[in-house]
Amino acid sequence: MNATPAASDLKSLGESFAGRRCLITGGLGFIGSNLAVRLAGLGARVLIVDSMIPAYGGNFFNIDGIQDKVHVNIADVRDPHAMEYLVLGQDYIFNLAGQIGHLESMEAPIDDLRVNTEGPLNVLEACRRVNRTAKLLYASTRQVYGRPRYLPVDEAHALQPIDCNAVSNVAGEQYHRVYFAAHGIRSVCLRLTNTYGPRQMMKDESGRYAFIYYWIRRVIDGHPLMIMGGQQGRDYTYIDDCVEAMLLAAASPAADGEVFNLGGEPMTHLELADVLIDVAGGGTKQIIELPAERRAIDPGVIALDYSKIRKALGWEPRTGLRAGLERTVEYYRNHRDRYWNAGDVAAQQTGALQGTAGAHRS
Amino acid sequence: MNATPAASDLKSLGESFAGRRCLITGGLGFIGSNLAVRLAGLGARVLIVDSMIPAYGGNFFNIDGIQDKVHVNIADVRDPHAMEYLVLGQDYIFNLAGQIGHLESMEAPIDDLRVNTEGPLNVLEACRRVNRTAKLLYASTRQVYGRPRYLPVDEAHALQPIDCNAVSNVAGEQYHRVYFAAHGIRSVCLRLTNTYGPRQMMKDESGRYAFIYYWIRRVIDGHPLMIMGGQQGRDYTYIDDCVEAMLLAAASPAADGEVFNLGGEPMTHLELADVLIDVAGGGTKQIIELPAERRAIDPGVIALDYSKIRKALGWEPRTGLRAGLERTVEYYRNHRDRYWNAGDVAAQQTGALQGTAGAHRS
Repeated sequence: MNATPAASDLKSLGESFAGRRCLITGGLGFIGSNLAVRLAGLGARVLIVDSMIPAYGGNFFNIDGIQDKVHVNIADVRDPHAMEYLVLGQDYIFNLAGQIGHLESMEAPIDDLRVNTEGPLNVLEACRRVNRTAKLLYASTRQVYGRPRYLPVDEAHALQPIDCNAVSNVAGEQYHRVYFAAHGIRSVCLRLTNTYGPRQMMKDESGRYAFIYYWIRRVIDGHPLMIMGGQQGRDYTYIDDCVEAMLLAAASPAADGEVFNLGGEPMTHLELADVLIDVAGGGTKQIIELPAERRAIDPGVIALDYSKIRKALGWEPRTGLRAGLERTVEYYRNHRDRYWNAGDVAAQQTGALQGTAGAHRS
Repeated sequence: MNATPAASDLKSLGESFAGRRCLITGGLGFIGSNLAVRLAGLGARVLIVDSMIPAYGGNFFNIDGIQDKVHVNIADVRDPHAMEYLVLGQDYIFNLAGQIGHLESMEAPIDDLRVNTEGPLNVLEACRRVNRTAKLLYASTRQVYGRPRYLPVDEAHALQPIDCNAVSNVAGEQYHRVYFAAHGIRSVCLRLTNTYGPRQMMKDESGRYAFIYYWIRRVIDGHPLMIMGGQQGRDYTYIDDCVEAMLLAAASPAADGEVFNLGGEPMTHLELADVLIDVAGGGTKQIIELPAERRAIDPGVIALDYSKIRKALGWEPRTGLRAGLERTVEYYRNHRDRYWNAGDVAAQQTGALQGTAGAHRS
């Protein structure tokens, strides 16, 4: 809380984004929609692009309350013609659309590569053709480091992917850096750690994309938390802090061509489970063995060093884990019907597009 | 020449490959076909897979003399059904098919990603489904290092791609390592430096895929060598040395999961031009400015440290640059009509498939 922005070129976020055109790919998902809400509040002209792939986290309820302030366009980032039209005239492009499941990436690696690498590359290609002045932000993952050689892991740590999702993210990062160096298309990459909060996907009942939403869902429903192993260590970023980092990095010329870790409070899975049960007002744990297919791609204990972004942009986490979980549990208790059942969620979304603002060029 | 194999598990190459099934993707191209010739000589059962993409280096004349000893199957490595059938029962898979042009990768990066990353990943996926016991070899490039921080560059050097082709090769490498760690599918990656010799593509008259074949073509035709810049430094591996490294790495269990640099004689472009002119018995140089699109992706002076593979597998270059160039120039002087004109080359290849051996399962 005592960070001081070191970069003298930092403008206020309002100054950077008010009236500016901001494209968010994956904008109906967890992080994209929280970013859209924040940008709309700053007075930006927000264009959300989302493919609404059924298994992923796109949910029209995520933009409830800002429907008339944002434009929604359903398209896949792999569609070259759509992207070429959509990137035109944008000031900021948040290249967030992605397949986020590590386990999923091992079972369907070609899809993971296409969504996480070819899609963002396709957005970069569209910018090369028609918009070389936009500033891009790419969301990568701490999984690119693999199993840490030292803790906390800084940006100089070797990239040693142990799952396919990490490979596709490394490539996504590197394409952004190549386009900056070779074509002058400005971008910044953030390596996100475990991010949690309102608007995250809840319809999956197996915990295959992440364990934190899975536990939140189970504790709210009064089911025991299924803890696989328990000694794994992770650090957690509350969604508002993640969004703040994205805005700071997008707004800052000093961040061009850079990659930054985010971070947060490190703890073991077992410790997290205890905090969550306490926050929820009760719950039980059930410890099971870490299944072999998860063990093969588990990084063990990992925590990120985020001093680089603190020094460069003045960012640091402002919401502690307990406070963040309190807000999260409250949000889902209030909106359970909008997130829990995949079939219901889909039914609610029929016709939702027509309820949003019109063509983005208006 | 004084290297001693340190790995006690090294068998003779004949013992490793005689009678064994070897699949070579990109097997009608430069490196793949030289490997096929060598493997056929060792008594291996060789299956060549090539897509014969017109702009690439596939050429049926490359297997002249071994047509009745190898099986040729035209297919794209991105074809999941073809690959699943073709990898079945193979003992060794040389995952070589690729788009090799750095400039080309900047102009058509999606194609580069699909051929160099999705294709090899598709081969790995096929192995995961039907053949987990094959040993794979992936051919990567020294370009993955980008602009060197120190010389010579060893395998611990950071991977800092400056062009799209390097990004797709980093991802290709990493998928092989993930499949080894997570699925136990054994593989080894070699980072090739500038490789030259007989059977390299010559039909391109612009030098857009590499400058060495372009110069060889021009010196043979009595045209001045167009030298862009001239102070760039590279190291050169003669094709027979490259093939030897591939066989050693494929045969050695000690190489499983490893990545090795190759290397050779380092020199500047201008020095190379002088040797080539001398070897060819005459020629002139014309120095032009390095075009901007090439300068943006040029690594400057680079040379690889190959002590890791020397210690592990006893490999080192055995053919010096002068001797290698002599053999190369002689080869193309003898077979100019088989390589020079793209239209003629294609016409010669009509029906060439039927002149090779039959179905590979026979």
